[in-house]
Amino acid sequence: MAQPLRVALAGLGTVGAGVIALIDANRDLIARRAGRPIEIVAVSARDRARDRGVDLTRFAWLDDTRALGQRDDVDVVVELIGGADGPALTLAREALGQGKHFVTANKAMIAHHGLALAAEAERLQRAFKYEAAVAGGIPVIKGLREGAAANALTRVYGILNGTCNYILSTMESEGADFAAVLAEAQRLGYAEADPGFDIDGVDAAHKLSILASLAFGSRLDFEAVAITGIRQIIAADIAQAQALGYRVRLVGIAETSPEGSSTAGLFQRVHPCLVPLHHPLAHVAGSLNAVVAEGNFVGRLLFEGRGAGAGPTASAVVADLIDIARGELGPAFAMPVAALEAQPPAPAGERRARAYLRFSVADRPGVLAEIAAAMRDANVSIESLIQRGQTPEGGALVALVTHEGPERCVADALARLDGSPSLLGQPMWMHILDV
Amino acid sequence: MAQPLRVALAGLGTVGAGVIALIDANRDLIARRAGRPIEIVAVSARDRARDRGVDLTRFAWLDDTRALGQRDDVDVVVELIGGADGPALTLAREALGQGKHFVTANKAMIAHHGLALAAEAERLQRAFKYEAAVAGGIPVIKGLREGAAANALTRVYGILNGTCNYILSTMESEGADFAAVLAEAQRLGYAEADPGFDIDGVDAAHKLSILASLAFGSRLDFEAVAITGIRQIIAADIAQAQALGYRVRLVGIAETSPEGSSTAGLFQRVHPCLVPLHHPLAHVAGSLNAVVAEGNFVGRLLFEGRGAGAGPTASAVVADLIDIARGELGPAFAMPVAALEAQPPAPAGERRARAYLRFSVADRPGVLAEIAAAMRDANVSIESLIQRGQTPEGGALVALVTHEGPERCVADALARLDGSPSLLGQPMWMHILDV
Ligand SMILES: NC(=O)c1ccc[n+]([C@@H]2O[C@H](COP(=O)([O-])OP(=O)(O)OC[C@H]3O[C@@H](n4cnc5c(N)ncnc54)[C@H](OP(=O)(O)O)[C@@H]3O)[C@@H](O)[C@H]2O)c1
Ligand SMILES: NC(=O)c1ccc[n+]([C@@H]2O[C@H](COP(=O)([O-])OP(=O)(O)OC[C@H]3O[C@@H](n4cnc5c(N)ncnc54)[C@H](OP(=O)(O)O)[C@@H]3O)[C@@H](O)[C@H]2O)c1
Repeated sequence: MAQPLRVALAGLGTVGAGVIALIDANRDLIARRAGRPIEIVAVSARDRARDRGVDLTRFAWLDDTRALGQRDDVDVVVELIGGADGPALTLAREALGQGKHFVTANKAMIAHHGLALAAEAERLQRAFKYEAAVAGGIPVIKGLREGAAANALTRVYGILNGTCNYILSTMESEGADFAAVLAEAQRLGYAEADPGFDIDGVDAAHKLSILASLAFGSRLDFEAVAITGIRQIIAADIAQAQALGYRVRLVGIAETSPEGSSTAGLFQRVHPCLVPLHHPLAHVAGSLNAVVAEGNFVGRLLFEGRGAGAGPTASAVVADLIDIARGELGPAFAMPVAALEAQPPAPAGERRARAYLRFSVADRPGVLAEIAAAMRDANVSIESLIQRGQTPEGGALVALVTHEGPERCVADALARLDGSPSLLGQPMWMHILDV
Repeated sequence: MAQPLRVALAGLGTVGAGVIALIDANRDLIARRAGRPIEIVAVSARDRARDRGVDLTRFAWLDDTRALGQRDDVDVVVELIGGADGPALTLAREALGQGKHFVTANKAMIAHHGLALAAEAERLQRAFKYEAAVAGGIPVIKGLREGAAANALTRVYGILNGTCNYILSTMESEGADFAAVLAEAQRLGYAEADPGFDIDGVDAAHKLSILASLAFGSRLDFEAVAITGIRQIIAADIAQAQALGYRVRLVGIAETSPEGSSTAGLFQRVHPCLVPLHHPLAHVAGSLNAVVAEGNFVGRLLFEGRGAGAGPTASAVVADLIDIARGELGPAFAMPVAALEAQPPAPAGERRARAYLRFSVADRPGVLAEIAAAMRDANVSIESLIQRGQTPEGGALVALVTHEGPERCVADALARLDGSPSLLGQPMWMHILDV
């Protein structure tokens, strides 16, 4: 059998320890599939004394993470520390600079520095791989980069954050409000102590920007993602959605449209959406992830599975290692970085869609007329309207669904209502997923 | 830019013409992704005069398909003729023998000759690829071979035949009987004039045997697949299933279990199943396909999309060509043929499951008691039983669901009832998918 592929592992937390456990459990199978053994030779983390549930005495321990990239006995460096900058980025540069292949699960770093790192890997003819960075165990990077490679993809979207999906599914099944479910999720370990990256949509946006670049051959542009999280969703939103035949999901969606069309450019958004029950994303429950890609020949492809956790994420990291062991090193974003096209962000305003709007209103005559007038003046046509129950602000709840129309009209209507003394708190706007 | 990858195309039917159309439409994108252009240089089919909706004058035409494999200006031969033997197999051997890479969508040929062809490709260090052979446009071969490669997979199953799924979905939505829906499907072109391979489950079995080999690292063993098609399903079966909270799907399922377990070996079966509504396969409608794989670290992965048709199938064929253009040639069944393990077929009898049984019975007293006695004597415990409506044979319909138990007991019960004058026609046995 050929020489083993020698791996250095930086970061021994949830994913790092999972990678060691996986390679231990599936060692022989991996060697048969990869054509050679995959062996960890050196590891690094902050705290040498910490018990990680796996035997580390077999590996060289380095206090200086960066030094992993400098070892002669290492072919691939795997970065599982996290963080857009700092030690992860330092290690990535060091490892590639020293001629190592580089594997990471770090979507924050890729969203911010992915193109530069990919260009460096290309120049040095080394692999830069990150299957675990998007949708955990689901091989969606490979699915877009290779499986759907023959297609012009026009849309990619999905449920990219398991924490948010868990919270929304639980709000739905238990009729509970956001804060209560978040607290419970934190207690159970499904949400971080500092949940901002997840529930504010930033993590999903990191992943979406990566998918968009891969799918469309466009330069990764994280800054252009419009992001709204799930903090403002109340139990009544979910109940209204249910009554109308929808489920609420945090959806990341990216579309590209040809120059000359009214929405030319790259559209990227993470936003809570109403997903109709007949759509497969409506059935993605709990902490699962799912990604849909639409190609001009293949039609709609769906990939679903576990988007996080030690086992699924390690599965994706080791899939990258097997690719490298097999000599499959190709460009990180499916084509050379120089071949990626810079696409201007597409404005949302001309997109035509139906909207869900929810207001918390003072309980007095004339409020509904005021809302209806603002809609009329902004050219928004109302499909259905319901006034039922109380909001957390102590107001009456008004929820409506619009007919299809340009989003800028909805924005205009909300601007007209901005500051109205009839409204308590901010209105909630969710898009209806009609694709 | 590097030299083009030069392709010869054998077979210019649905898929062959689709490949030409795809390469024409997405030429530039493919070159960017593949790192080099992909160019068809020569084609062959039976009838040179036939209009195929694409311009063939650009390509060399060969009347002798086999001669495609002998041309010096060809790097890859793509076989889209079909048939387990005959010209497809002759061409495969010729092409590999002449040092060409080989791509096919031909699941029948792979099910019967895949291991021999893969071994030959390996010996000659050429690619043997077949993404289009299973589940059309869904990149499930790549998903198992690469995406899930770090896992010990224990089960792979799915909806592998779009014709059957279309018929079953339509029976469900229209309450119609099998024969009427099949006739309509044939009129609409969703089913072949000779539909046997599809509706008798053989096509699904071809695909299942390929998936099983890839997933488990076992030698492909098509002969060991137990096959039942959908001809015997009547409208009342679907209605009963619905009333019980299930949908009827033709499911191909393969499992491997370790030596020493009571069901050791490789279990492979294509059979109509009752799929509970909470399972994602219940929501795979119309002509879609879906595949589920369960790994020891990744958990459950689901791939869904179009399993047939010119566009989706061409998408998969060209994905293989892009892999080859990128130099990604690895072993066809994820590991060298010599590393695949021969696994004995696992007996179905010890499998524990719930069963749906439907009888058409003579309308006279004592029949129910006779069925119940047979169940009792065979140690089958009945969970629910319903006697309602008429069967096409003019009998009364009795449908029951058993508690979980070994399948051999159900087989025993049916054997006890075999030949009973109380029964009109064969009983129908469907398995309940409880995974
Ligand atoms: N968890 C998931 O399900 C998941 C899924 C997909 C992607 N990811 C990504 O995978 C990466 C790792 O996530 P995780 O959940 O495994 O994180 P984690 O459990 O917090 O582990 C982080 C590891 O990095 C080490 N570390 C932190 N700062 C370091 C430094 N300055 N120098 C050296 N080592 C340092 C820590 O060392 P100590 O243990 O000694 O403190 C720890 O072992 C992140 O990029 C994350 O976004 C995670
Ligand atoms: N159709 C699908 O959606 C689909 C999906 C997945 C996989 N596949 C597989 O793809 C393959 C092709 O399917 P298809 O639907 O494209 O079949 P098709 O429409 O029947 O086309 C078959 C082609 O092969 C040619 N051919 C037949 N016998 C030949 C011979 N002896 N020598 C040379 N050429 C010969 C025919 O030539 P003429 O046109 O001159 O008669 C025709 O162009 C099959 O293996 C099938 O299982 C098909």
